[in-house]
Amino acid sequence: MKSYRKELWFEAPKRRAFFNVTPQVEQCLRESGIKDGMVLVNAMHITASVFINDDESGLHADFERWLEKLAPENPHTAYEHNRTGEDNADAHLKRTIMGREVVVAVTDGRLDFGPWEPIFYGEFDGLRRKRVLVKIIGE
Amino acid sequence: MKSYRKELWFEAPKRRAFFNVTPQVEQCLRESGIKDGMVLVNAMHITASVFINDDESGLHADFERWLEKLAPENPHTAYEHNRTGEDNADAHLKRTIMGREVVVAVTDGRLDFGPWEPIFYGEFDGLRRKRVLVKIIGE
Amino acid sequence: MKSYRKELWFEAPKRRAFFNVTPQVEQCLRESGIKDGMVLVNAMHITASVFINDDESGLHADFERWLEKLAPENPHTAYEHNRTGEDNADAHLKRTIMGREVVVAVTDGRLDFGPWEPIFYGEFDGLRRKRVLVKIIGE
Repeated sequence: MKSYRKELWFEAPKRRAFFNVTPQVEQCLRESGIKDGMVLVNAMHITASVFINDDESGLHADFERWLEKLAPENPHTAYEHNRTGEDNADAHLKRTIMGREVVVAVTDGRLDFGPWEPIFYGEFDGLRRKRVLVKIIGE
Repeated sequence: MKSYRKELWFEAPKRRAFFNVTPQVEQCLRESGIKDGMVLVNAMHITASVFINDDESGLHADFERWLEKLAPENPHTAYEHNRTGEDNADAHLKRTIMGREVVVAVTDGRLDFGPWEPIFYGEFDGLRRKRVLVKIIGE
Repeated sequence: MKSYRKELWFEAPKRRAFFNVTPQVEQCLRESGIKDGMVLVNAMHITASVFINDDESGLHADFERWLEKLAPENPHTAYEHNRTGEDNADAHLKRTIMGREVVVAVTDGRLDFGPWEPIFYGEFDGLRRKRVLVKIIGE
């Protein structure tokens, strides 16, 4: 069994942002030399997500509005977590909806995807450097 | 390390439907000859899900009503994504709630499940042929 | 490839509770002798979750309130599933929001985590003994 590990770093210029990280994950896969196996891509922070969905700006605006409806940022005082000095309780909830991680099959040296499956890093508490882990195992 | 890969195809006769795919995944496991490892089962489309929950029609009706409450299909014009010519923005959101994939342990040649863990394909934008990927790695 | 499997048992003293299971998963990893690979931690029941988020009591109170808003327990009669003699339809929905499983990378014999990534067992239909599966594969 071979394995590969890399951290990808991101700094969102605002509180919430989505980054298409598919090219970086593909680069990791090439570096690994692994042809068959599985890749795990996960946020290393509990106020951020990794997920697979459409790279379409209208849908991203829909996600923003929808997440604000399901887990609104304001008022900050609505959340007990924010009494600890934090202001990011909503980010913990949004990350829960969007998910921590994806596992993707590797076949013939490629991410084994359907026709439209880009991988996104979803930031819900940005304005600082945060990390995504790429771990690949296989042969 | 051994590996196995298969695509399962589905065509839902309406926009939304759930398919219990456990028998097909068990068949894949038998074909693979893998006795110990992990199986990944994922939707290959971003308007569909793979998840584990109860095979009970009342609960499925509850899921349908609940997903319509959290991410209603109508009006289509409520979603920016639908201005691109699509009408399936709600399906992208529903898939997010229900999840893209499951990873299941393989032990002694069997899906290592608790007492009630069927695997479902959840379709939220049906009436066309769509795919699920089954990838198994192990020994 | 090496593999390891263990069931962890829990009995929540009330309907809903969160257990930080990170120490038990770390103990499993030590017992496995696996230094590099992946660990799957999943609920073996469809009314419970395994997830990664903050070990902070205020946030847990926020989760409780939020899940009751998105998928309220009462009235039990609101759910078709509860007409089957069950009373836990809400637990199936809450588990869907919080997730069935996590997959965590193993690197240098340790759970390859960011700074704050504890693993939780989330019980939504407690007062009985239930299980979590820990499955590790690697070398």
